[in-house]
Amino acid sequence: MQLQLSTWQEVEAYLERATAIIVPIGSTEQHGPNGLIGTDAICPEVVARAVGEEEDALVGPTISVGMAQHHLAFPGSITLRPSTLIACVSDYVESLTRHGFDAIYFLNGHGGNIATLNAAFSEIYAHASLGRTERRVRLALTNWWDGGDVRRVSNEHFAGVEGSHATPSEVSLSYFAYPEAVKSASLEPRVAPSGRFRDAEDYRRRFPDGRIGSDPSRASPEVGERLFHAAVRDVRKDYRAFAAGGR
Amino acid sequence: MQLQLSTWQEVEAYLERATAIIVPIGSTEQHGPNGLIGTDAICPEVVARAVGEEEDALVGPTISVGMAQHHLAFPGSITLRPSTLIACVSDYVESLTRHGFDAIYFLNGHGGNIATLNAAFSEIYAHASLGRTERRVRLALTNWWDGGDVRRVSNEHFAGVEGSHATPSEVSLSYFAYPEAVKSASLEPRVAPSGRFRDAEDYRRRFPDGRIGSDPSRASPEVGERLFHAAVRDVRKDYRAFAAGGR
Amino acid sequence: MQLQLSTWQEVEAYLERATAIIVPIGSTEQHGPNGLIGTDAICPEVVARAVGEEEDALVGPTISVGMAQHHLAFPGSITLRPSTLIACVSDYVESLTRHGFDAIYFLNGHGGNIATLNAAFSEIYAHASLGRTERRVRLALTNWWDGGDVRRVSNEHFAGVEGSHATPSEVSLSYFAYPEAVKSASLEPRVAPSGRFRDAEDYRRRFPDGRIGSDPSRASPEVGERLFHAAVRDVRKDYRAFAAGGR
Amino acid sequence: MQLQLSTWQEVEAYLERATAIIVPIGSTEQHGPNGLIGTDAICPEVVARAVGEEEDALVGPTISVGMAQHHLAFPGSITLRPSTLIACVSDYVESLTRHGFDAIYFLNGHGGNIATLNAAFSEIYAHASLGRTERRVRLALTNWWDGGDVRRVSNEHFAGVEGSHATPSEVSLSYFAYPEAVKSASLEPRVAPSGRFRDAEDYRRRFPDGRIGSDPSRASPEVGERLFHAAVRDVRKDYRAFAAGGR
Amino acid sequence: MQLQLSTWQEVEAYLERATAIIVPIGSTEQHGPNGLIGTDAICPEVVARAVGEEEDALVGPTISVGMAQHHLAFPGSITLRPSTLIACVSDYVESLTRHGFDAIYFLNGHGGNIATLNAAFSEIYAHASLGRTERRVRLALTNWWDGGDVRRVSNEHFAGVEGSHATPSEVSLSYFAYPEAVKSASLEPRVAPSGRFRDAEDYRRRFPDGRIGSDPSRASPEVGERLFHAAVRDVRKDYRAFAAGGR
Amino acid sequence: MQLQLSTWQEVEAYLERATAIIVPIGSTEQHGPNGLIGTDAICPEVVARAVGEEEDALVGPTISVGMAQHHLAFPGSITLRPSTLIACVSDYVESLTRHGFDAIYFLNGHGGNIATLNAAFSEIYAHASLGRTERRVRLALTNWWDGGDVRRVSNEHFAGVEGSHATPSEVSLSYFAYPEAVKSASLEPRVAPSGRFRDAEDYRRRFPDGRIGSDPSRASPEVGERLFHAAVRDVRKDYRAFAAGGR
Repeated sequence: MQLQLSTWQEVEAYLERATAIIVPIGSTEQHGPNGLIGTDAICPEVVARAVGEEEDALVGPTISVGMAQHHLAFPGSITLRPSTLIACVSDYVESLTRHGFDAIYFLNGHGGNIATLNAAFSEIYAHASLGRTERRVRLALTNWWDGGDVRRVSNEHFAGVEGSHATPSEVSLSYFAYPEAVKSASLEPRVAPSGRFRDAEDYRRRFPDGRIGSDPSRASPEVGERLFHAAVRDVRKDYRAFAAGGR
Repeated sequence: MQLQLSTWQEVEAYLERATAIIVPIGSTEQHGPNGLIGTDAICPEVVARAVGEEEDALVGPTISVGMAQHHLAFPGSITLRPSTLIACVSDYVESLTRHGFDAIYFLNGHGGNIATLNAAFSEIYAHASLGRTERRVRLALTNWWDGGDVRRVSNEHFAGVEGSHATPSEVSLSYFAYPEAVKSASLEPRVAPSGRFRDAEDYRRRFPDGRIGSDPSRASPEVGERLFHAAVRDVRKDYRAFAAGGR
Repeated sequence: MQLQLSTWQEVEAYLERATAIIVPIGSTEQHGPNGLIGTDAICPEVVARAVGEEEDALVGPTISVGMAQHHLAFPGSITLRPSTLIACVSDYVESLTRHGFDAIYFLNGHGGNIATLNAAFSEIYAHASLGRTERRVRLALTNWWDGGDVRRVSNEHFAGVEGSHATPSEVSLSYFAYPEAVKSASLEPRVAPSGRFRDAEDYRRRFPDGRIGSDPSRASPEVGERLFHAAVRDVRKDYRAFAAGGR
Repeated sequence: MQLQLSTWQEVEAYLERATAIIVPIGSTEQHGPNGLIGTDAICPEVVARAVGEEEDALVGPTISVGMAQHHLAFPGSITLRPSTLIACVSDYVESLTRHGFDAIYFLNGHGGNIATLNAAFSEIYAHASLGRTERRVRLALTNWWDGGDVRRVSNEHFAGVEGSHATPSEVSLSYFAYPEAVKSASLEPRVAPSGRFRDAEDYRRRFPDGRIGSDPSRASPEVGERLFHAAVRDVRKDYRAFAAGGR
Repeated sequence: MQLQLSTWQEVEAYLERATAIIVPIGSTEQHGPNGLIGTDAICPEVVARAVGEEEDALVGPTISVGMAQHHLAFPGSITLRPSTLIACVSDYVESLTRHGFDAIYFLNGHGGNIATLNAAFSEIYAHASLGRTERRVRLALTNWWDGGDVRRVSNEHFAGVEGSHATPSEVSLSYFAYPEAVKSASLEPRVAPSGRFRDAEDYRRRFPDGRIGSDPSRASPEVGERLFHAAVRDVRKDYRAFAAGGR
Repeated sequence: MQLQLSTWQEVEAYLERATAIIVPIGSTEQHGPNGLIGTDAICPEVVARAVGEEEDALVGPTISVGMAQHHLAFPGSITLRPSTLIACVSDYVESLTRHGFDAIYFLNGHGGNIATLNAAFSEIYAHASLGRTERRVRLALTNWWDGGDVRRVSNEHFAGVEGSHATPSEVSLSYFAYPEAVKSASLEPRVAPSGRFRDAEDYRRRFPDGRIGSDPSRASPEVGERLFHAAVRDVRKDYRAFAAGGR
């Protein structure tokens, strides 16, 4: 059940049977020569929507722009500064708790969001902890790739070439979601270098085509489909536990 | 050309032939008993994407949550406070200008965004005006319903019942975009009351089912399709003038 | 009744018979070769004070500096960034509601304030809408030139040369208020160019002497007096309706 | 020379002969049973304007609302929070330096502004000190009562009953400026209690009618006139030294 | 009793017998050729801890970095901007009031903190004054050198050469606290120049080795010890009065 | 070499041989019945100072208050909200880069700081990435317990009872640092429960005495000494690599 495709009365009815909601959060940033700039938003969005259908869970609109300062040396990348993203997430959550939602499940598609999103959670919890509000909310952050099934499929196909950015797994999943957008590019070297990074220039100097440690030329919509089903299975379990009060 | 479905090299190539970009911006808020909560994001998004195709214009990811404080008494509505939305839009624009985009065209779907978005533009311009940056950028705000063709179709079908929120026009366009989400609801009274509003409680007291001055029971995907084509025609013209340096 | 010229006991007494207050808000910015930099603050101030006398309405201190980023290429112009103006207006309003004022009527003299002031209203309302406060307040924004009487006088004298910045009407009203400050300047061209603008440099390039679409050489204290009386009539009616709970 | 009553060309001409400017800053807060709420804005404003005339110094628009949180238990008092006032003063100063002003002289009328205004100065200087900007500016804060001549007149008339808030001196000066607003009230006790204070409730508990240590029943327009001339003499000297590069 | 060396149960027990706490606040900034960069944090810290022991007062962790923008032209100086320091102090205080502390006594070691710290107090009080919170707190700011005993010892040893920055008194006290860090440096001129300052470059131009008006070559651990005992006596008295509800 | 115990000339000399600096960062929060509230600040501080001695590395003043919202239901815990901590760290780093430091090594003692500190790094990097500044800086975050030697000692003594908050390892290290502050308390149950947590009330409900998964009754100054030496070895290696340009 997508919030964007529902009426307010449908949400009102939903709130009588559930008070949890899924919020996909991604990023808008380069994903190497054959990866889509929207990869990190696309992946959690398609998984969240499927989970929403299967679990009768409400799915909010995707936060498509995240914390991507390190990708800004590649055209098309967009970032919110951490302080801005914290403000956004805070307003988003405060609006939902106003209606009675008390369990917000962020399904994340971008490693670079994790620190800032956890900081945002602390900012939100701090209001309660400092005694400014009586409202209580449970917040969870799960990456779509966190579960065992995804890891299994990923290892089966991409062992040794998964890397950590512009991975064949996420590229595959985005190809499955948007087969019309499959790209081909010759990658040189086949497996990108690995390592840390700091600001945007530093990132580009170390990873000239944007990939980190990965060979996304191995990506395909077919593996994407397997990953999609694996992720939906993983996330359904995780979300169900969360909605039931766990975590 | 959608930013989210492009690679960074494709954006790099785009920047050699154009430096303008379209950014759809909407809202997540109640749209009466048969309107979708995502109406205001859906409408500019579908129009923007079509314009992008026809005009070879890049379309950035939709800002789906806008300024909707007045709708918060209806479940499912989400707002960013104006100060938060100003910060978001500023970061979004600053990221784009970093790459060489110098003309950002916001295609808006929500009247409640207009004031804050214009304030955000002034906040961004102020950096240049105060001498803090050498970068220059042109910003435009167009509502998808601003053009003459849309007004003609709208008047033809909905004269006297268009109203100003949850209008049959926007509901029709969203139905055209998502025919699977067409809703039916009995509206009482047929045409909603009109007037101003202040905060969320005040809004709900005045407009108990969320509509203002409209009869969206008249909405249909068929009229939505006509409106879609009209909006694309209107916006293409407007965008072309903007990209060419006008406005 | 001016707040600045009252004692706190007089305000206490006022609050027993009324809970509305008028706040003039203007700007400090160039107004062309013969217009005063304070025009936009002067005009609503003199109108507000007269309305205050006639209607036994309390008038707060004028907010003299507004949102004027686009005028910064002309010496003497001062701006608050929108985010700063939002914070100012929020504190101003929150202070007043603390005392029991629940209806704040901003009488505005600067078109450039409108978007930011409306954003500020939404920022203030959002506190209530998100459930952060129990306090309720009604906010109104009226421009001194909004009413029918002003428009009539303006049209009678300045049809076709009113323009939109450094208008003969506002210059006349400021001359009426400060006859000792009447300026003369030769204007070339007689009627300034019209159009949009963005940041300060862009504005100055398009409108080299600061005027937009106007011929303020036609301004005079005599017409200013007629405009003054017209504005007082217009605003009295509007304020009375607001104070009575309307709007 | 008042900025508000000048044209931009007059300011342009001024900047060729001087780069200093006077900014009156006050507060909007209770001043006891017979003092005006605007006292702290009125006093520096009238002194600044006279100094401006005598010294050919430009005088900017008065900042009428300052830091007055401690007065909020008395109706009519308005405060900016310190963080808001810092933002306002920063924008005000940054706008002026944009035009070439490099010496801003704040003539203050409210003790409660001093700490925050000094913090604002440090906030502004920090931009230069951290290396964010090449612009340099000199900032000064003078209270209208700082000079020897004012102190002499004050001591002559009000020795022992001057106190520190709602003083007979400031009330006298405001009466001189607005003789039509002279108030009479019986004060009990004649001389108000003295001491420190914290928040608004604490202040009102300690100082039930708003005065601190003063007997403003002694105030008169006649002494106000003497104080006015004394303050103008004091401030002229001080301003001249500042404008010449001193301090 | 140091907070950092206590358990939460010990604090819980403390709160049953007292609700006041001492917070040392200093700065990290150059103190001339023979003064320690940490002088302003060290001095209030050692005094506060001794007072804590003698008075059974809880002492919180030292705020070591303060407002020191004017020292940034000397290597090693660190500043918080005033707005940042206000946020820090606000969070620190709000955390303490959450536990039931209602009297926070800041023992300060840096003149440059005073304005910003007082602004922070007003920011905190404003929450109560505007009616945002029911919590009440008393805040005090005392400099370790404020008392009569310190002044006597200081005058006895350093009359005429105390100056206002990198004073022999503070250097002596820091030497007493850290005898292993005693420095020697030849000072030229013996007594540094005096005067005001603005930003960091201006400061360094006027005071090339960092000192203002002082001859800290006269500093010694022995005088430091006398100052330490004097300060402890002074502050004990002052703190006791504050904790008892005075001030 | 401690910044607080150095003169500015010593720092100037240091900058000729090195441009890296170590900044200890901790927290002020409950550490169970026998752990010190300052544990998380004490541990990195003592390790950092020893590393500083051995490596001729400058060590800045400890940031003693971190992000500890979840501990606020236990008396004595103090938090900065994430947004405040981001501002603090940004100012701290910007001050240091002003002097020529280009490699800041945060030695952390609190798991709860990690997300916010990484968000702060991104906030700082974003300035460069967005093109606002030419300055470049390398930032590192290392926990004192990250290295292999610490893990070995920890496992040797506390396998199975280390837990994740109020661990015997950190308690031991703090006891070694402050033997006079060793506490004894009977712990019930011996090993605390494990799990996640959200806001302060939630934390206390799950972990009634503050510990998570640990048995700190096993802590001792003797093991603390071993851990100290292990941590110094680990961190020396790590810091040396960082200072040399690695990471």
